Amino acid sequence: MNNKQKTEVLDMAAGNGLINRRHMLSLGMTSFATVVASESLVAQSPSIPVWSKSPGPGASEYGAPSRFTGDIKRLAYPANPIAPGTGASRTPLHLLQGTITPNSLHFERHHSGVPDIDPAEHRLIIHGMVRQPLVFSYEDLLAYPQTSRTYFLECSGNSGESTGANAGDRSAAALHGLVSCAQWTGVMLSTLLDEAGIASGATWVAATGADAASLGRSIPLNKALNDVFIALYQNGEPIRPEQGYPMRMFVPGWEGNVSVKWLTQIKLTDGPTNFKDATSRYTELLADGKALQFTFPMGVKSLITSPSGQMSLQRQGLHEVTGLAWSGHGAIRRVEVSADGGATWADAHLDENPTDLALVRFRIPWQWDGGPAVLQSRATDTAGIVQPTREAVLALYSPANRYHFNGIQSWAVSTQGEVLNVYA
Amino acid sequence: MNNKQKTEVLDMAAGNGLINRRHMLSLGMTSFATVVASESLVAQSPSIPVWSKSPGPGASEYGAPSRFTGDIKRLAYPANPIAPGTGASRTPLHLLQGTITPNSLHFERHHSGVPDIDPAEHRLIIHGMVRQPLVFSYEDLLAYPQTSRTYFLECSGNSGESTGANAGDRSAAALHGLVSCAQWTGVMLSTLLDEAGIASGATWVAATGADAASLGRSIPLNKALNDVFIALYQNGEPIRPEQGYPMRMFVPGWEGNVSVKWLTQIKLTDGPTNFKDATSRYTELLADGKALQFTFPMGVKSLITSPSGQMSLQRQGLHEVTGLAWSGHGAIRRVEVSADGGATWADAHLDENPTDLALVRFRIPWQWDGGPAVLQSRATDTAGIVQPTREAVLALYSPANRYHFNGIQSWAVSTQGEVLNVYA
Repeated sequence: MNNKQKTEVLDMAAGNGLINRRHMLSLGMTSFATVVASESLVAQSPSIPVWSKSPGPGASEYGAPSRFTGDIKRLAYPANPIAPGTGASRTPLHLLQGTITPNSLHFERHHSGVPDIDPAEHRLIIHGMVRQPLVFSYEDLLAYPQTSRTYFLECSGNSGESTGANAGDRSAAALHGLVSCAQWTGVMLSTLLDEAGIASGATWVAATGADAASLGRSIPLNKALNDVFIALYQNGEPIRPEQGYPMRMFVPGWEGNVSVKWLTQIKLTDGPTNFKDATSRYTELLADGKALQFTFPMGVKSLITSPSGQMSLQRQGLHEVTGLAWSGHGAIRRVEVSADGGATWADAHLDENPTDLALVRFRIPWQWDGGPAVLQSRATDTAGIVQPTREAVLALYSPANRYHFNGIQSWAVSTQGEVLNVYA
Repeated sequence: MNNKQKTEVLDMAAGNGLINRRHMLSLGMTSFATVVASESLVAQSPSIPVWSKSPGPGASEYGAPSRFTGDIKRLAYPANPIAPGTGASRTPLHLLQGTITPNSLHFERHHSGVPDIDPAEHRLIIHGMVRQPLVFSYEDLLAYPQTSRTYFLECSGNSGESTGANAGDRSAAALHGLVSCAQWTGVMLSTLLDEAGIASGATWVAATGADAASLGRSIPLNKALNDVFIALYQNGEPIRPEQGYPMRMFVPGWEGNVSVKWLTQIKLTDGPTNFKDATSRYTELLADGKALQFTFPMGVKSLITSPSGQMSLQRQGLHEVTGLAWSGHGAIRRVEVSADGGATWADAHLDENPTDLALVRFRIPWQWDGGPAVLQSRATDTAGIVQPTREAVLALYSPANRYHFNGIQSWAVSTQGEVLNVYA
């Protein structure tokens, strides 16, 4: 039975080829292998490859990827000559699988480059509206009880290009690669603030990094006491220099910039602090010229990573449509996928149990008949919030706003199989 | 209030200093910081460090750890000159946190080194008792629906040294570092076997790798159809060469050796295949000279990673006792900790929700009064199986057996704070 015939008996989940996953798996109808007669197995088998003929190198102290995966790297844009070290690199979302981002591929955003901090010389100071100011060394912090949690981190400026007037020919990583996910471990900030003693009237927490930008951001005290922690480990090992080594204030679910890296000062105050990056960036300009400030949680969002922009479908027939979803308001409850530009939707399968403020991987089989298609995904979180359309997001702000874009992404598939970023 | 005074009001959870975690956190009694007067903050603060004075380097394509964490590496033993590439490296469990093992630090065990496989030239062949033999390229496999799951992997020989007559002065990694945990993504083997068509009478699956050892192992067909998959990704990126790039047969919860790396052949048979490594190794010798074979699931097990062997406690007072637990029979339900060599036990706190066949991180606060202590942990899984004592495990086998050791680990703390591997 070829793929065309199979389509006739498929349990379709939505228009233009989206298929019920359980049904497809039970049919066992995916077939991309080469079928060979038993007697010709030897002929079909590869000749003994060179790597099977002699022993390879032994165990190593710190491993590295295969040399054949050298194209899987962050998209790091050229350095800005007038602001050394300033810039970003994006996670190659369309080349990865699962939800954990390997530490070497976690996105970066720096405002004055990556400081080379000696942890023995680094200090964290807690001061301001506290009973007793405290100074912590790195070794001091390691002695406290720790907690591990898996959380996404997303830059407020992620997907900003999607607010532009024209849809550029871009990959998923280029458009949306300022989001990553890791298992973080550290000391709850509430533990340290309890020890310092919170003075009456303190309502905000201002954090400053030890980079040359002295990057600072402030957050409300109630968030700081809820789930904020001083991250010391990332996917098991000490956090990487570009993520704030030796310590970072991690603020789950909120725009990445407030998770201050290379954390060196925490000051309790009776109101927000207008650091440079609380005003020069990370505000949402409105149509009337005013701007929203301190809009911290990242909105519910999803993204098809495959097929995605600049990919090319090599054949008609079955493809797995897969991607990532997340929300700064809780866990992901549902992801729907459309293959006809939003006319009809089907529920995608979610890998592993979704947890609060973490990436979720979704999957759904799709039978591409060779005709044009527009693939979209739409997430719903446990707060009941549904990911908005691009138009709905744009309507909230001035056309100049580039932050907190969480609109639905559309990928057009041409009859030649080319996948293109479009506004649909 | 100093630590001695605090002890008097502590909610003790078990003997010799184990403390109820919630109680301790609510007391806010952990205090390792330096308290300073507000007016002396400037004096106490470090002088502006060099890394805050000028911009650092910008974003990079593939990140690396800080140069100050260079001692966090796998324990790779010297190569065996008569068997090139053969050997192992161990995860530095006592230097890591959380449960995800970074890919560069996942343990290794090789029987003829690491082949340098070009995925474009690699093939997977499914043959034997099937309706139609199939040949898959790497690209073929990438086209199938995939699944992501977080699973531990443990070598059957892990902790083998703990069966020896004398307790060596060893670290947690040296004794138990042949266990790691990652989020793996790949294609369910059942999908591929359905396509090949399982012939009547087939009951076992034999897998062979493309390394120079042609390492082979066989597993029962019912396991293969249950949760076995062809792993293509590890913590998001393609699996590392030392883990089987480009593909590995991952067998959740079972001894690591059956998760055949560099997978190139799967053959359906009507019984087990006695590959070299099904007999020369990975069997458990009994007292009567017979041996147990095909004892696949790894037993319920736990391990305190801090404080652990060769560490040194720098001060009396509060310490977090933390470690890892896992079971090849399901999820971890409970971990108990003892500070008095097993006389009394307290329940430890489990980070994140335990899932099937994955590492769990446990934690409990401990007030060390400077006296001698013996720290132990004991896991219970969802099958109701309780981790046995060392003596109970030894009683099952010949003294020469080195495999499947899952006995309770004891760390003695001397009055000087030195932590030593002991049999207690």
